[in-house]
Formats: sequence, C-alpha cells, structure tokens
Amino acid sequence: MTTHVWPDEQIVRDLAQFRRVAPLTHCITNIVVTGFTANVLLALGASPAMVIAPEEAGEFSPIAQALLINVGTVTQIDALAMTKAAAAAQKAGTPWVLDPVAVGVLEFRTQIAVDLLKYRPAVIKGNASEIMALAGSTGGGKGVDSAASSTEALPQAQALASRTESVVAVTGEVDYVTDGVQTVCIPGGDVLMTKVTGTGCALGAVMAAFLAVCESPMQAAIAGSAVFSEAAQQAARLSSGPGSFASCFLDRLYLIGK
Amino acid sequence: MTTHVWPDEQIVRDLAQFRRVAPLTHCITNIVVTGFTANVLLALGASPAMVIAPEEAGEFSPIAQALLINVGTVTQIDALAMTKAAAAAQKAGTPWVLDPVAVGVLEFRTQIAVDLLKYRPAVIKGNASEIMALAGSTGGGKGVDSAASSTEALPQAQALASRTESVVAVTGEVDYVTDGVQTVCIPGGDVLMTKVTGTGCALGAVMAAFLAVCESPMQAAIAGSAVFSEAAQQAARLSSGPGSFASCFLDRLYLIGK
Amino acid sequence: MTTHVWPDEQIVRDLAQFRRVAPLTHCITNIVVTGFTANVLLALGASPAMVIAPEEAGEFSPIAQALLINVGTVTQIDALAMTKAAAAAQKAGTPWVLDPVAVGVLEFRTQIAVDLLKYRPAVIKGNASEIMALAGSTGGGKGVDSAASSTEALPQAQALASRTESVVAVTGEVDYVTDGVQTVCIPGGDVLMTKVTGTGCALGAVMAAFLAVCESPMQAAIAGSAVFSEAAQQAARLSSGPGSFASCFLDRLYLIGK
Repeated sequence: MTTHVWPDEQIVRDLAQFRRVAPLTHCITNIVVTGFTANVLLALGASPAMVIAPEEAGEFSPIAQALLINVGTVTQIDALAMTKAAAAAQKAGTPWVLDPVAVGVLEFRTQIAVDLLKYRPAVIKGNASEIMALAGSTGGGKGVDSAASSTEALPQAQALASRTESVVAVTGEVDYVTDGVQTVCIPGGDVLMTKVTGTGCALGAVMAAFLAVCESPMQAAIAGSAVFSEAAQQAARLSSGPGSFASCFLDRLYLIGK
Repeated sequence: MTTHVWPDEQIVRDLAQFRRVAPLTHCITNIVVTGFTANVLLALGASPAMVIAPEEAGEFSPIAQALLINVGTVTQIDALAMTKAAAAAQKAGTPWVLDPVAVGVLEFRTQIAVDLLKYRPAVIKGNASEIMALAGSTGGGKGVDSAASSTEALPQAQALASRTESVVAVTGEVDYVTDGVQTVCIPGGDVLMTKVTGTGCALGAVMAAFLAVCESPMQAAIAGSAVFSEAAQQAARLSSGPGSFASCFLDRLYLIGK
Repeated sequence: MTTHVWPDEQIVRDLAQFRRVAPLTHCITNIVVTGFTANVLLALGASPAMVIAPEEAGEFSPIAQALLINVGTVTQIDALAMTKAAAAAQKAGTPWVLDPVAVGVLEFRTQIAVDLLKYRPAVIKGNASEIMALAGSTGGGKGVDSAASSTEALPQAQALASRTESVVAVTGEVDYVTDGVQTVCIPGGDVLMTKVTGTGCALGAVMAAFLAVCESPMQAAIAGSAVFSEAAQQAARLSSGPGSFASCFLDRLYLIGK
C-alpha cells in the first residue's frame, strides 16, 4: 500500500489547479456544518454554493463543477432535493461525493443513502462504521460498529468500491482511499479535528471540489485528504484548544502551498 | 441559599465522569446555534448528535444518553420531531432538557413548549422572561417581561418546578437552579457571553449531557452552569471582543480541570 | 458622486444611536449564515431574532424594529414565512431589507424575490449580478453576469431604485448606494471578506438594523457599509487568514468607535 502526504508533487499541482479553477461546488449538507463547510471551501480557494430547495437542486447541479451530498440531518424534503441533484449531476456529468453520515444507526437515512448510490457517486467518504454499514446494507446485511478503526473497515471498503464502481474513502486516524483494486493511505491529521464539528463533513466537500480538477476520483480523494491532514497538523501546533484550532485550520488551508 | 462555583469538589468529580462517559447527547435545537452547540459539547468532552427528522428523532432519543429540545426556531415539522423524541425519551428513561426560547413572545412556540411539558423534562432552562412566561402559561396566565432579572423570576421558577416536578434553571447575570424546595445560585460568567449567539442554548445542551452522569437533575444543572461560568470568566480575560471570546471559550471548556 | 467613509460625523452619530437603541432585528436568512449574522448584529450592538416559522414570522415583524429577508437557501415554506413577514412589516411600518442572493441564476428564488418587491423593501442589497438580474427581471429581461463589477451595475441599480422606490446598495470592492437620483460610494473593505461566508449576508442584516435608527434608508445603507468596511480593514491588518479574520472582524465591530 502506498502512502501519500503533502507535499507530494501531484497533490501540489492539483491544489494549484484547484485555486486557478475555483470549483463551483454545490453542497447539500447537514444544518450543523453548512457555515463551516462553506468557510473551508472558501479558505482553500473553491466557490461553495449551498442550493438545497427541491425546486432548485436539480437545476443547479448541472451548472456546478462538483456536488456534495451529506445526509447528516436529512429530512424528507432534503431527500427529494438530494435525489434531484444527484440524478441531474449524473446526467450532466457533474462528479459527486456521497457522505453517508450515521448510516447504519438510523433506518431512514440508511435507505436514502442506499437509494442515492444508483446515481453513481464518484467518491463515497465515511468513517469506518458508516462505510461498513453502507457496504452491508447494499448486500442486505447491517454491519454497524461505531468503535471500528479505519483499518478494520478496509475489506468492506474495497468490496463496496468494487460493487459500486465508486472510490471509497475511509477516514480516521489514518485515511484510506480505495477503488477496490488499489488502496492508498494518507496519515496525518490531529486529534483536535475530532473536537470540532464538521471537519469530516467539510473534507467531503473538499474531495468534491478536487473532483473538478483532478484526473481521477482516486486522486481527488487523496489530494483532499492530504491537504486536510497537513493543514490540521500545522493548525494543531499553533492552537490551545478546539476554538483556536478551528480558526487556525481555516488560516492554514488558505495559506498551504502559498 | 447556597452558592456553587467551580471548583467545588462535586462539580470537579462530575466533569471527570462526564469526560469518561462522553455522553451521547441528542440535540434538537434551533438553526442559529447548531454548529456552536455541537462545538461546545465536543470541547467539553461529550458526543453530540443532531438528529432532527421526525422519521428519526423518536428512534434516536432512546439510544442517546441525554436529550436537548430547544424551540428557538421551531417549525411544524420540528415540533413533530420534538414530540416524538420527548415521548420516546420519557418511555426509555433518557433524561432531557427543555429550553423554551422566546416562549411568551410568540403563541405558536409557547403552545409547543407547554405541550412538551407532559413528557416531563428533567430540567427546564430559560432566562427570566421565558421561565415566567412558561410558569404563567401552564397556569393560564401570560407573564412576559423581557427586562426581568433572574432574581425576579425566582418565585415563578420555584412554582414551575413544584408543578412540573422538573428542575428549573433561570439564567442571567447570576444563574439560579431550583427544584421547588431547594434553590441554589451560581454566580460568574461574563457580559461577553451575551454578545455571542448560542451561549445560553449551548448551556442547555451541556446541562443535558451532565444529566447522563450526575446523581440528580439538580446537580446536572448546577454542574453545567458552574463549568460554563468559569470557562467564560477565563475566556473573557483572554479576549478583546466577542469573536476572540467565542474561540477562547471553546478552548477553555476543553482545558478546564485538565 | 460623493464618498462616505468611517469616521464621517453622521455615521459616528448613527452608530452611537444604534448602540443606544439596540434594534430588535428580525432576520429570515439562509441556513449557511444564521449564526454568523446573529454574531455580527450582537457584536455591533443590535438584538437579532431569527423567527422563521410561517406561523410566527408575520406576528413578529411588526414587533421588530427592522427586518431582513435573504433568499440564499429559500424553500417553499421559507417563502411563505417571508411573504407573511414582509406583508406585516409593510403594514406595521417596520422597515426592511431584501437580499436577493443568487437571483438570476435560479428561477425559483428569482420569482420569490420579485414577488417580495411588492411589499416595498426600504433597501435592496446585492452584488452586481444580483442587482442586474433583479433589475432585468422586474422589467422582463434576465441580465445575469456574475463577473460584473459594481460599477457596471450602477445604471441598472439606479433604474431599479427609481422603479421600486427602494434604496439599492451594490456591494463589491467598492460599495455603491443609490436612490435613483443620488448615488454615493463607500470604498474600503478587504479581499479576506470574500473568503468568509456570510459577510455580505450579514451586511444586509446590519443595514436593516441601521434602518431603525437612521433618518433615511439611504443613510442606513451608507452607515452599514462604512462601518463594515472599516471593521474589515482593521481586522485584515490583524489576521493571517480567513479564520482569524472572521474572529477579529467580530472583535472590531464590537470595538469600533468605542
């Protein structure tokens, strides 16, 4: 398994391209993290657009350069918007990321996430439990284990990637990215990331934005993860707790590679 | 009336237990403060989960170790989720906090808050006006006085506590906590807390999380209030305004007692 | 064209009055920026109230001293709340600001914004593209140009102001405020404002709050813009990126003129 970290040459080039393009990134995400997600995208150089009404979501995803769907606080009306956005994205060729937050714990959102798979996300990003649950659900099972490490989830992540033809990113102390054949690992990050809400959700949005500029979904997930890990490590060294970390993390995303 | 402040021995013990348990705290709160509330819970060591869909709320509150319901921006669909969550929490024995934001000012939310009382919140937390309004409403009156101090609200807080068998916390320059028989006061805090949105709302969530580890709702409300007041005082000394205060407050919650 | 900047005498007087009155400012805004908008209003000395349910919005806007309506993430149910709030505000004499976020890009929200014009906002605030789109739409056209500068939008801003009898504020590197006859410019600000979500949206809320204390909508828009620009410039000098900028910007709003 190869390891990728900032400043790998390809990742540095991808970030430079990211900033030139400023990908218009359509986000339908949970209400806890909308502001932070937009701020992360802006800090790194993307152009976020939170378009969430069912009347607009399917009109906007074809205009956007990438799409994130995160089911963290999904309601029935959100699910309708997500379906329209994903269907239109697939038709228009807008690449998208699915973040199956807490899938496996609650039936309603699990079904929504499973249904969304048919629109072929380029990347599925979740923690070990979420990926294991989603892998199980699509096969009929129900593997939920919130204490699972990302390593434990690897076999199911690989199986999920093969079955869906999506790249699967399993986040944790170490992140793994797999297309079912190749698997790479991205170490780094900092435990303070787990003390700020929305860091994982924002990473999903960043991976989506990288889809607009990288040559493959695999590379987009790797670049997003590596940039995040490096900025988090830099921020942790300058912080005294999660409040200063969140602020400093945005600064470092803004400054990384400049 | 006894006074409780950090670092009272019992509060220190409760916080240590809080961090060991990391209470899974189900929050159905207003859209202004979701992110900040999650960050406050994370900083202090709890595990927040904002599960808000009517399809999920009643399934999740029995899994959670505590529940917060805050009616700050309640809509009809939110009210349905709140009712399901509160009913399931009562049945499952999950203790919960009701935060009746702006009750008394607007009829719609007042009725929702009054209806929720039947599911027996362990703690009702509000400012003086809200507690007076809720006390009046349950008795048929309509005492709203947004200029009221927490001291003025004490008699009605005590009456409300007796009638509902909930602990009532009245927040203000000084916080009071009463079960209708005993009343204690928690001084401290800082005026900068009133310049950051969601500090009061996040305190409700913290009281909820303490319900999972304290021996009584009275002690949970006291511990939450005392920890908040101390962290706010520490943060205020290190801040130049509400922006740096908010960031520093999260750092201090993370560091308090470590 | 005259230029206004902090500390023009009238703006300083308006801000002092703003802090004495602490305008109760009703906001129906998008879900990305609710928290930041409330924090900006609190930092500057206003009293924000996010009342968004259709059952409450029309009851609250007559109580409030000013109203902001921002269509950034408008849904059907939000549109109902906005209509009720705007209609009741007009009837009660509560002055209000319309922020037509992304109008012209998406049909659904464009129609909602156009419909809201009938309730006579005191101020319409948008970037060049939004103002051009709204000007075009009300006349039947559809002029959208997201690359437009605020200068390019001036003729259409003036036409929109004349037709609607609203003051129109066009924000950008330089802000312009026009009532269709007079046009003034407010330079300042900093590019970091474009890297923090919600700065423009929060400016709409601040202009609304100034409506409660200024002698004219023109002066309210000017004062809001000038105070914002100055605080942003001060904050930019003290920041290393968008995270520290956002925090520092709130501090400077709190401290400006004290």
